[in-house]
Amino acid sequence: MPPAAPRSGDAIFASVERVNAELFTLTYGAIVRQLLTDLEEVEEVNKQLDQMGYNIGIRLIDEFLAKSNVSRCVDFKETAEVIAKVGFKMFLGVTASVTNWDADGTCCSIVLEDNPLVDFVELPDTCQGLYYCNILSGVIRGALEMVSMKTEVTWIRDMLRGDDAYELQVKLLKQVPEEYPYKDDE
Amino acid sequence: MPPAAPRSGDAIFASVERVNAELFTLTYGAIVRQLLTDLEEVEEVNKQLDQMGYNIGIRLIDEFLAKSNVSRCVDFKETAEVIAKVGFKMFLGVTASVTNWDADGTCCSIVLEDNPLVDFVELPDTCQGLYYCNILSGVIRGALEMVSMKTEVTWIRDMLRGDDAYELQVKLLKQVPEEYPYKDDE
Repeated sequence: MPPAAPRSGDAIFASVERVNAELFTLTYGAIVRQLLTDLEEVEEVNKQLDQMGYNIGIRLIDEFLAKSNVSRCVDFKETAEVIAKVGFKMFLGVTASVTNWDADGTCCSIVLEDNPLVDFVELPDTCQGLYYCNILSGVIRGALEMVSMKTEVTWIRDMLRGDDAYELQVKLLKQVPEEYPYKDDE
Repeated sequence: MPPAAPRSGDAIFASVERVNAELFTLTYGAIVRQLLTDLEEVEEVNKQLDQMGYNIGIRLIDEFLAKSNVSRCVDFKETAEVIAKVGFKMFLGVTASVTNWDADGTCCSIVLEDNPLVDFVELPDTCQGLYYCNILSGVIRGALEMVSMKTEVTWIRDMLRGDDAYELQVKLLKQVPEEYPYKDDE
């Protein structure tokens, strides 16, 4: 039997169990507020959100591989496209685009067209320096690490900081293909 | 024009923006883990989860009233039914049933038929005493307070503690109808 074709982000999103986006947004806001109260330093909150995202990403990749029928990507370029077109759609219900590739294809930007994490959010002046959505960078980093790609993920633009979009730079640091944690039938 | 009829939980859930339930589950798990690390005492974590839920509930009620077309409930009995049948469906995509009413209709239990917060969760021995889903009791308490019902919400049964269901007891302490925070056209 030939392997199943990869499914579109829309098709997957329509078929998985979901919860109300506003509940998710408010729950995420409650985390950030909690961290700001407990940790005090904005820089520590950024780190902690990234770490929480990483812990989520290393588990979410299983759901992603199981539901999407995506198997090994040919290269980092394809990987980035899959994250933007399938991953963001499947988990957050939004799409993203990939842009700003460097010459050797190891660094690009993912630009979000919509961002459900920030609905109703306004940062007070005391939160300058906060990367409110830093959980997302951690999720991508964690998920990619489980398919043997060490990456560095950083915010380039953040609308909560006055920019005109949400842009995440994903930089491939190291790739170790033989350590794939899942088996395929090739 | 007659007022719009209340909408079913299914209809609302189908029409609102949603995110992947597994992402929500893992994000919630990350909060609980964070609180356990930061606060150390399980009892403090229970309190904090309840407080976070309360903060979410006082905002979520707006979305609930806006989307559900539910206006003033006749009494606490109807309120409890609406929470179970419309509220849980609308936000978590699950339904719940109302049972164990006391004689004067001011105390009942809401029993969850499914609970997306606990997928993949197993509590280690060090977390005995934790009410993992305590955010839910806070959400109900907060939301009801915004429609002038002071309640006490406590877990009666919790499957993570070895019980056979998730059962929340909701006890009406005080009702102040004239302080409704929203206007209606009556």
